[in-house]
Amino acid sequence: MDDAVLAQLIDALPAGTVLTEPDLTESYRDDWTRSPAAGRPAAVVRAGSAADVQTAVRWAAEHRVPVVPRGAGSGLAGGVTAVEGCLVVSTERMTAIEVDPVQRIAVAGAGALNVAVKEAAAVHGLWYPPDPGSFRISSVGGNVATNAGGICCVKYGVTTDYVLGLDVVLPDGRLVTLGGTTVKDVAGLPLLKLFVGSEGTLGVVTRVVLRLLPAQPPAATVVAWFDTPQQAGAAVAAMGARVRPAMLELMDRATVNAVEDFRPLGLDRTAGALLVGQSDAPGAARAEEVEVMAACCREAGAREVLSTDDPAEGDMFLEARRAAGPALDALGAFMAEDVCVPVHLVPDVLDRIAELARRHGVDVPVFAHAGDGNLHPAIRYEPGDPDSVRRAEAAFADIMREAIACGGTITGEHGVGRTKRAALPEQLGPDVLELNRRVRAALDPLGIMNPGALC
Amino acid sequence: MDDAVLAQLIDALPAGTVLTEPDLTESYRDDWTRSPAAGRPAAVVRAGSAADVQTAVRWAAEHRVPVVPRGAGSGLAGGVTAVEGCLVVSTERMTAIEVDPVQRIAVAGAGALNVAVKEAAAVHGLWYPPDPGSFRISSVGGNVATNAGGICCVKYGVTTDYVLGLDVVLPDGRLVTLGGTTVKDVAGLPLLKLFVGSEGTLGVVTRVVLRLLPAQPPAATVVAWFDTPQQAGAAVAAMGARVRPAMLELMDRATVNAVEDFRPLGLDRTAGALLVGQSDAPGAARAEEVEVMAACCREAGAREVLSTDDPAEGDMFLEARRAAGPALDALGAFMAEDVCVPVHLVPDVLDRIAELARRHGVDVPVFAHAGDGNLHPAIRYEPGDPDSVRRAEAAFADIMREAIACGGTITGEHGVGRTKRAALPEQLGPDVLELNRRVRAALDPLGIMNPGALC
Repeated sequence: MDDAVLAQLIDALPAGTVLTEPDLTESYRDDWTRSPAAGRPAAVVRAGSAADVQTAVRWAAEHRVPVVPRGAGSGLAGGVTAVEGCLVVSTERMTAIEVDPVQRIAVAGAGALNVAVKEAAAVHGLWYPPDPGSFRISSVGGNVATNAGGICCVKYGVTTDYVLGLDVVLPDGRLVTLGGTTVKDVAGLPLLKLFVGSEGTLGVVTRVVLRLLPAQPPAATVVAWFDTPQQAGAAVAAMGARVRPAMLELMDRATVNAVEDFRPLGLDRTAGALLVGQSDAPGAARAEEVEVMAACCREAGAREVLSTDDPAEGDMFLEARRAAGPALDALGAFMAEDVCVPVHLVPDVLDRIAELARRHGVDVPVFAHAGDGNLHPAIRYEPGDPDSVRRAEAAFADIMREAIACGGTITGEHGVGRTKRAALPEQLGPDVLELNRRVRAALDPLGIMNPGALC
Repeated sequence: MDDAVLAQLIDALPAGTVLTEPDLTESYRDDWTRSPAAGRPAAVVRAGSAADVQTAVRWAAEHRVPVVPRGAGSGLAGGVTAVEGCLVVSTERMTAIEVDPVQRIAVAGAGALNVAVKEAAAVHGLWYPPDPGSFRISSVGGNVATNAGGICCVKYGVTTDYVLGLDVVLPDGRLVTLGGTTVKDVAGLPLLKLFVGSEGTLGVVTRVVLRLLPAQPPAATVVAWFDTPQQAGAAVAAMGARVRPAMLELMDRATVNAVEDFRPLGLDRTAGALLVGQSDAPGAARAEEVEVMAACCREAGAREVLSTDDPAEGDMFLEARRAAGPALDALGAFMAEDVCVPVHLVPDVLDRIAELARRHGVDVPVFAHAGDGNLHPAIRYEPGDPDSVRRAEAAFADIMREAIACGGTITGEHGVGRTKRAALPEQLGPDVLELNRRVRAALDPLGIMNPGALC
């Protein structure tokens, strides 16, 4: 890029806002996907305000520079993998959070961490439910971009269910507010909803207005060990019609063992699958719901079922589940799958994943938001071994194909990003893909926003 | 319209599908808004299938005939008011409903009534929550078009929260499926969400896949009479941080009296406002939640508070609230307002509405989904008296202005349709309005879908 053009950007923004030195921009090239294809940004803007973002995007539009909007960089689908010569617009410094306990909303800068919003809400006895596995390190702006899910979704829904308003810098640099603070609002097309999950392709989110709930009641926990993941899947399918669990998570044997290696908790290493469920129903109903869940596990053939009303004991199992990602990470590289299938098909799909793993000669531990049918097969591979990479990629593609074939989706909560873009046409078909592109082109006619991501 | 052109449409569809005689098309000119500006359709297609809808829309696209998609015609914002010479595409015959109790979904034709979906779900011990006041007469396709709300929203959300998938005939006649059956799906732009609430401007919904919940637990009810609506509003604001009511409805004195005239139930005609709340928390928590709600009412100065665990007694109060619309209707014509404001401002906004009613010399009974801040002022007028109409219209406009001024919206659940289109720019501002139009033009380049509605 022409130095004079870059100088215009540097001059237009507060001192220290623009990074151009390769050693400084290096850590902005990639997200947790660790893509070998990550390009080198021409510059990184560490915006301190929406005005900074506007300045940056206007400059990019004028000079036709691709913009990669970036939150905390914790994505798992390459949604913020840098494009060669791009402008990375990072909102990491925009971390202000204001909680209005009367309206029960949080107004947060896009760079505020999910956990910080939770903590700020808790001060007022309030609760921000969305809890992606990354909640301690991911930003709410990134959560909005991917419409992030998590463990609570089975009862409390996903990010879009909590977004009341957004400030967005459009691809031409205009700043708009979508939505507001009311829970019901049908004035105009639901553009607010269109932006949640748009993966930075329609603009840069700078501020979010989030709906809060009263603090979550304490939870009772049920833990069940099964001989096979299929039995656990059957228990999950049976529960859905009878109770509304506040979480319902599954780990297969390989994941349980990875967790035990990483952080010994005394989990049964010999079980084929571990199911952890919680009820946060108020009062005595909590124990009743957990008892229904336990009965479903026993009926599905669980070898052992344990339930507890002690939040601390329950938290231990929740932490075991939360450790699954880091524990598998500690074992080496894996491709993070995120398919979502109809819940009653979870047992079948687990079978098929095991079969595909055997066929391609790869290890594929699976953990899952089982209550939503959202599976995270972790396809392990050796980054230095091209054959291992090739086999992992083949399994990755086949698992997505399997999800599509059974009426599911290639991504439940991570997004399409760049790693799943090739699979999107197979799921959507040409007509819906074309609709995606038409909407995108309508809002970003220059095609500068996050090119190569999503669709 | 050229008879030969119309003959092409008639010939292309099954016998009896197309109505052209004015006495047959008359009842398709309008919805519950009873707009004096309703045009005369060139034809009405009573589609029996998505293929019929495709044929009709293709014909309309070829001949540049405006299409007004129509469900049950129960809208309150003129969203299906016929355009002169248009083609009305009615889905009223597409009423098939299939419930899959294993997946806990209902797949319904767009013309299926909301109540019929509820009933079909109940057979399997399941529940479809969205419950607009019109639920006995409105179609799920229309509910999707307006993103309809209702009484349960305060705890259970609105229509978009239950739509997993849609079949839509696009403005060029192509049939696409958006979404699917899984609760989590972030593959591509959230076009499914874009279509829910798009008021027939982006296509004709032909089939919906709806998420069902386990049957709602029985509810306990609290009823409180206040001297003033402001006291009731204060009680509502106080509850939100402490409990999650399953409903929280308000009627002012005029509405209570209209209901008593319409269906005598022994309500206190002298109270300034009646608040009806319910908790459907499981087990003993139900009574506890209702006690918290009752305490909030007493603290806000309620003159009388009654609570009951008896579902039949509770239902009586729910029915009283549901009778508000028909009861006011029986008194004569009114313009149905639908503003939504931050909940803590409900008392202030009720004051302002009373003041505006006095200033314009109109009667404005108010009932409200108070827990959401969604107010339904009913602006009464004499259709034959131009001065009365003028004063009512002025009050209608001023109430919307009031909602915008306090950070609310001109429509919480009825939609913009044609009656509120003039007020939309004031709420959205020029930039967001332009975004609406760009998205609309991208998906309907010929501009044939529901022209004059929404934006």
